Order: sequence, then C-alpha cells, then structure tokens
Amino acid sequence: MTDLTEMGKRAKAASKALMAASPKKDAALCAAAKELERSSGEILAANRKDLAAAREAGMRPALLDRLALSEARIQGMAAGLRGVAAQPDPIGEVVSGITRPNGLRIEKVRVPLGVIGIIYEARPNVTSDAAAICLKAGSAVLLRGGKEALRTNTAIEAALRRALAEAGLPADCVQLVHDTSHDSARAMMNLTGYLDVLIPRGGKNLIQTVTQNAHVPVIKTGWGNCHVYVDASADIDMAANIVFNAKASRPSVCNAAESLLVHRDIAEKALPAIKKRLDEKQVELRGCERTRAILGDCVAPAMEEDYGTEYLDYIMSVKVVDSFDEAIAHIAKYSSGHSEAIVTQNYANARRFVNEVDSAAVYVNASTRFTDGGEFGLGAEIGISTQKLHARGPMGAAELTTTKFIVTGDGQIR
Amino acid sequence: MTDLTEMGKRAKAASKALMAASPKKDAALCAAAKELERSSGEILAANRKDLAAAREAGMRPALLDRLALSEARIQGMAAGLRGVAAQPDPIGEVVSGITRPNGLRIEKVRVPLGVIGIIYEARPNVTSDAAAICLKAGSAVLLRGGKEALRTNTAIEAALRRALAEAGLPADCVQLVHDTSHDSARAMMNLTGYLDVLIPRGGKNLIQTVTQNAHVPVIKTGWGNCHVYVDASADIDMAANIVFNAKASRPSVCNAAESLLVHRDIAEKALPAIKKRLDEKQVELRGCERTRAILGDCVAPAMEEDYGTEYLDYIMSVKVVDSFDEAIAHIAKYSSGHSEAIVTQNYANARRFVNEVDSAAVYVNASTRFTDGGEFGLGAEIGISTQKLHARGPMGAAELTTTKFIVTGDGQIR
Repeated sequence: MTDLTEMGKRAKAASKALMAASPKKDAALCAAAKELERSSGEILAANRKDLAAAREAGMRPALLDRLALSEARIQGMAAGLRGVAAQPDPIGEVVSGITRPNGLRIEKVRVPLGVIGIIYEARPNVTSDAAAICLKAGSAVLLRGGKEALRTNTAIEAALRRALAEAGLPADCVQLVHDTSHDSARAMMNLTGYLDVLIPRGGKNLIQTVTQNAHVPVIKTGWGNCHVYVDASADIDMAANIVFNAKASRPSVCNAAESLLVHRDIAEKALPAIKKRLDEKQVELRGCERTRAILGDCVAPAMEEDYGTEYLDYIMSVKVVDSFDEAIAHIAKYSSGHSEAIVTQNYANARRFVNEVDSAAVYVNASTRFTDGGEFGLGAEIGISTQKLHARGPMGAAELTTTKFIVTGDGQIR
Repeated sequence: MTDLTEMGKRAKAASKALMAASPKKDAALCAAAKELERSSGEILAANRKDLAAAREAGMRPALLDRLALSEARIQGMAAGLRGVAAQPDPIGEVVSGITRPNGLRIEKVRVPLGVIGIIYEARPNVTSDAAAICLKAGSAVLLRGGKEALRTNTAIEAALRRALAEAGLPADCVQLVHDTSHDSARAMMNLTGYLDVLIPRGGKNLIQTVTQNAHVPVIKTGWGNCHVYVDASADIDMAANIVFNAKASRPSVCNAAESLLVHRDIAEKALPAIKKRLDEKQVELRGCERTRAILGDCVAPAMEEDYGTEYLDYIMSVKVVDSFDEAIAHIAKYSSGHSEAIVTQNYANARRFVNEVDSAAVYVNASTRFTDGGEFGLGAEIGISTQKLHARGPMGAAELTTTKFIVTGDGQIR
C-alpha cells in the first residue's frame, strides 16, 4: 500500500513554498495548461486504456461518458487552469484590520490551509480542476481519484508536476494517490497532522462514508434536493420558465430542482402551464392528489419518499400547498439545504422566504441552477458546501483558505 | 437520563424566533443582567451548596476558586451580559454582494447557525457568558456544565429563562442539561440534526474527548503552548518586558507564554535581563545547556517534553537557538498553533516571522497575552480556536454564525 504518511510529509514540506502569495502559482497554472496540451497524446492513450477496462468491467454508459476524455475536453481542462491563473490571489488579503487604542495594529489576513485532500470518483477532469484551485489557495493537495481513471489521472499528474517544477515550485504540491484501494481512502481520512482538510467530491454515498469515518476535518459538498415554490401571486409565465430551467436544463447536477410546490390559489392555472413546458423534455411528474386532480392520471402519485429524493433525472415531485407557511414547513422537512427558490410578486412573502428558508442559497424569481462558483462570481469552484461551518454554498479558492491574526506593536504589554 | 433529543427539538423550535436580527435579543440580555442581580441571593445560596459538596469531595483550592461566586462576580456576569447587548448584531450583515451582468443580485448574508452546544467544566460564569454570546449570534444554546456547579448553574439558567420570556423570546433559547453524567455528554456529541455545532470549553482532556468522539460539527478551542522568540537584534528591555508580561501576568490562561527562545548572539546579555524580571514572580526556568551555561545551575535542565508542555504556571522552558531559522523550526515542531511572538528590530525577520509561523496569532514586539476577543476588538469571546476551519483565533459572536446566499432576480434562468 502507498505510504500515505510519507505522502503527507512531502505535501506538508511542499506547502511551505506556498505560504505567501506568489506569482509562481499562476506561472505554474499556465505551464500546466501548456503541459496538458502538449501531453494530450499520452493522456488520451492512457484514457483509452481506462475506458477499455471500464467497458470490460461493465461500466454504465453515463459513467463511461464521465470517464472519457477527448482533445476538446483536454482543451477545456487547460482553459480551466488558465482561468484559475487569471483569478486574483486570495492569499494575503487583509480581511479586516484595526489599530487599537494602545497602538497595536491587528490584521486578520487570509493564509493557506496547508494540505488539502480530495477524494473523488472517475472524472479525470477533477484531477486538474481540483489541483488548480488548491494551488491557487496556496495549499498542497493529495488527490485520490477512482480506480477506473487511474491511468488517465497518472498521466495528468505527471503533466501537472512537470509544470510545477518548471515554475520553480515543488512538484510535491500535487500528488496523486496511486493506490486506489479502500485502504488508501481510509488512510486519508485518518491522516491527522498532515491533512488540514479532506473534501469528498462525488455522490451521496462517498460523502456520507467520508463524513462518518474521517478523523481529519471534512468539508461536506452536498447533494441537492432543491425546491421551487410557486406562490399564489406568481407570474405564471415566469414560474413555468423558472421551473423548466431549474428542472430540465441539466437534471444531473446538484443545483437542479427536484420538487415543485404550488400554492392552491394558483394551482389550477399554474400547473398546466408548467406541465406544458416540462413536457418538452418529457419530464415525469409525481404529484399529490390535488396535483393529479388538476393534471390528470398522466401524473403518477407521489409517495412520501419522493419528496426526499434527489432524482438527478427528468423526474419531479409536485405538491399543492394550502399556504405559504406550509411551503416553508415542507421545505424545512425535506430540503437538503442546498438551493430553494420562490416565484412570487408578493414583497412580504419574498422577504419571509429568504429569511426563513435555511439553505445555502435562497432565490426570489430566479432559477436554482445559478448556485455555482462561476455564476456567483467566485471563479472556479471545488464544490458546493451544504454544511454551515467554514463555508456554505459554492466554494472557490478563497473558501479553501484560513486566516491568521498578525499583530504588530512596539513593545505593548497587557 | 435527560432526553437530549427532546431538548434538541425544543432548541431547534426556539431558534426559529432568532432567525432574523432582532432588538429582542438585546432586551433579553439586559433583562438577564437584571434577573441575575435580582436573583443573586438564590444563586449564591445554590453556589454555597455546590462549594460545600465540592470541598467535601476534596476539590483543589484553585478549582474551588473557579467554582465560587460572590456578589462581585455576579455583578461581573451581569456587566458581561450588558456588554454583549451593547455590541452590534452580527446577524443580517451583508458580508459581500454583487450584481451580475444578467441582473441577478447576489448577497452573502450573515445568518444564525441554529443551535449551539457548549460542554464546559465547573465555572458557573460560563453559563451566562456562553448563553449571551450564543443568543447574540442568533442561536439557541444547550449548556452542559460540570456536575460540581449544577445547583449554581440551575439558578443561573432560571434567571436567564425568565429574562428571555420577559423579552418575548422562547425560554428554550437557553437550556441547561441537568443530567451531568458522561451519558449526557456523549448524547450531545451525537445530537446530529439538532446541534449545528458543539464547542468544548475547558482543559485539554475535555477538548480531546469531544473532538475525537463527536459526530456533530465541533469547534476546537485550544490549549496554548505559546512562544516568545528574542531575535539577535531585539531591544533587551523590550524583550524582558514582553517575556515577563507574556509569562507572568496571568500564567493560568492559554495565551500565556510557556517557552522562550533566544538567539545565541544576544543570549549572553538578554537572558540575565529577562531572568531578573521573571525572578520578581519566582518563575522557574527549565533551560537547554547553553541557557544553563549563561544563567547557572539555578536553571533546571529542560527535558524534551518541557518544550511541548503547557505549564499554566510560573514555569518557562528556555532554549538558545543558533539562528532565526532554528527558532521558526522549533516553533513549527512544538507550538499548539495558538500565539507566538518575536521581539526584533530587524525588518526582514519581522516580515518572515509573521509569514512563516503558522499560528492563530503572530506578534511582532508585543505580548502574546493580547490574544483575546476583547483585546482584538471582537467583543466577548466564546474561546480561542486553534483549528483552521471556520474560525481561527478569538471567537466572538460573529464567529458563531454562518452565511447564506440571497439571490434576487426578475425571472432569470440559466
């Protein structure tokens, strides 16, 4: 088995080179983009081997598609690296600062975490995306991808490490864990003293396993059971547009809506209009009795568990609610705390919704699909936190940092 | 055993009343100050019973002193409550905000965590201090104090709950866990779904037990093995002043210095001057060989473990280092990441020290004793975090909050 402690030590040592803000990081990111492009032949050859093995092992087509690279996808990864290089450096930012009456100058300054671990599945683009954000955040990174992508990830790792060396940074700022056994994942979860934070990127099972078993600090990136609530006063065209976009523009992502709530006073008019839009993509609806009374038997009856399900598919649960308060209570019960939207023309309800719904992102008259680092102006993101501590919502490089207090004086004592 | 789940449910329900910024919180804090003063007779009577039982059980005098209340100490607690009431409300603060090219307005707003748990030892003032900060932060709180203070804490809890009701807030915003068994502590550590964060306040053992066993999110408040490094260029008087203050002004607190490093080029002059000051308080020195060669046999030899020890007493380890780099490496090896200071007149070394020392607070030419919420201008503090995630350094009410993104539009889709 790979010696994770040894890798942790090397990462810790490499991270010292990143403690201060440095143009070398951006040079390394630009060099990495070039190295990926230059090495695309190698990377694609490795990827073909991974794909062949995965096909042989019976991997589903949707997962094969995630595993597959192409010239265009490698171009996309390179563009991502250049994009991260172009973002401002979060390190060194003075978050706040005061001079005390005794003359002490106290500044809270953004500094790197040190070493970040990422456990992910079989998407090789995560290897370069995650490495880039961690590097920008001034941390060394240990990457443990899925075994199905090992050959591809190894080729990408080699390109990234060459780029680091070119830019005069330790290659050990980026290390791939080549042992893809469960043991190596468990070892990462217990790498106390070396890993400053561990981030699971992937499905619900991966995230639960890591949060339940890790002894190192974890940031939970979340699954999304996102709701759109169409209030009594909603503009029906706007509601249909937003529901269609939230559900059907890209159902496989965590900011897609899974559940639709409609106020009873508007349900008769709104539900048919919304269904008409959703029919364009053959979205399957699973509704409460009142929904079915309005839309007919083409809507399957919703079971209790439907309201708690992240379908990640062209399926949506629907419920007619008696009141604004019932909508809020339903969301409080079933939401995963990711993103929820209200469609309304009622000022008081808009205000109450954003105050009372306890999710990472709450929307008035806009699609939940905007919950994304790029859309929020944070640059590239490592994931969307649905926990409340440290970071909540889309996490860019700044969310992968910590702060320290720098206190300067001329002999002050207390 | 107390049903912690039931308490958690009541706390969660009560926390809804605190979701928005509200003047009721400050009214409740002021009412609580009055209630404490009005009930001082009861509280002191309960405290006398606790003290008698603790004396009988053989509690050490230093701990008895922590447990003991007096009219003056209750006045102090009341003043603390009024102080927290006077602080600005962290809830509702717009941390950042932008308007996107598509017209979406995205604001990151400070909101309450929900329910905070505090596990602490036998200091009854923590009951009112912690409740006040949590309430200011908009969260309900479950308080589990040490069994030795149960009668006192119960009397304080009653006063606080009366004040909440007076101010029109649910009394369940503050609940004391009356079961002080290990079972109740364990139950709190596993109150997933009800406790948004658990904070252990107390000694190293308590903190380790909680961080190792909790399944709810924890903020680790730290112990402090704080260093003062006297650089070759230091002003010797300033160094002696700072070391004396950092070590001897209040040795029982976590921001007191435990270890002194002195550059060899200044050791001959600086060590005798520093020792002279420390002698005023009979501070026991435990030094390396070179320290003993300069100061003589009155300095005990330092063992390896001395450099990692938080004495919390009039004891200090001392080491003469060959270089600035050796000082940095020594701190990296032994520090608990709390507070470290350099005394220097060298600009480059001051800059390197604050960049390279990876602690919550780093000082140039000032005493480590300033690491404190009040001294840093954060108001009352719940503790000092030595972890890197969520909060680092002194934590005031703002550090006990989270944020959410509020996104407002007029029909935007992606």
